[in-house]
Amino acid sequence: MNIVDPAVIQFANDNFYLAFNSRDAVQMSVLWTEDYPCVCIHPGWAPLLGRDEIMESWNNIFSGQEPGIQIVCHSPRVLLQGDLFSVICYEQLPAGWLVATNNFVIEAGSVRMVHHQASQCMVPPELDEPPVVLQ
Amino acid sequence: MNIVDPAVIQFANDNFYLAFNSRDAVQMSVLWTEDYPCVCIHPGWAPLLGRDEIMESWNNIFSGQEPGIQIVCHSPRVLLQGDLFSVICYEQLPAGWLVATNNFVIEAGSVRMVHHQASQCMVPPELDEPPVVLQ
Repeated sequence: MNIVDPAVIQFANDNFYLAFNSRDAVQMSVLWTEDYPCVCIHPGWAPLLGRDEIMESWNNIFSGQEPGIQIVCHSPRVLLQGDLFSVICYEQLPAGWLVATNNFVIEAGSVRMVHHQASQCMVPPELDEPPVVLQ
Repeated sequence: MNIVDPAVIQFANDNFYLAFNSRDAVQMSVLWTEDYPCVCIHPGWAPLLGRDEIMESWNNIFSGQEPGIQIVCHSPRVLLQGDLFSVICYEQLPAGWLVATNNFVIEAGSVRMVHHQASQCMVPPELDEPPVVLQ
């Protein structure tokens, strides 16, 4: 079992939204695993499998119209499942709410992303803490 | 690392859809982990955390209107991420297509579910094999 402070995983999760909001393809690339099979399921999309497809999608999203969409991450919760860390959180976008799963593994001492899936959340969450705004 | 035939994981994934299609709350309960933190994100719903919330949702779904919705699972792909097995597949429902992630761990020698997330897939997949129909 991995002995990792959940705050370290939350930091990686924050870095994901920071990379997204700042349209930083390099930071996004650094975050995603080099060694594990990985999956990214953008809202409404078919699943993208493997680094190449996933990074191509981020590059396309980041090179799209300015200004880009900003995501505010709310209520991240870190779960340890085997030696995988799963972060469940809400994403607040201008068009509405999503619920996201962001999964991480420890790879050569670093926290790397192996899975992202964001799906529509019809009922906005009841939030009892201020949001984390990363820009 | 777990040495498990991917067919064993696909069998567990099949059992998930079999339990759903036959509205079998007992089999669904057997499938879900007893020991790990677990998450279920039904399409459009907020995330449900832990066995109690998850099983309550299945019981409510299964006790709803007859006949229940039937899901046809297409193109399951098994990925090994650390010691967690992730199955990415399409779900064909009367109302349209979903893409699902079903994650499993080995718990006391059995394959148990720790995560389910199904989200809308706007573009139907191009399928090159016959669907798996479980009833």
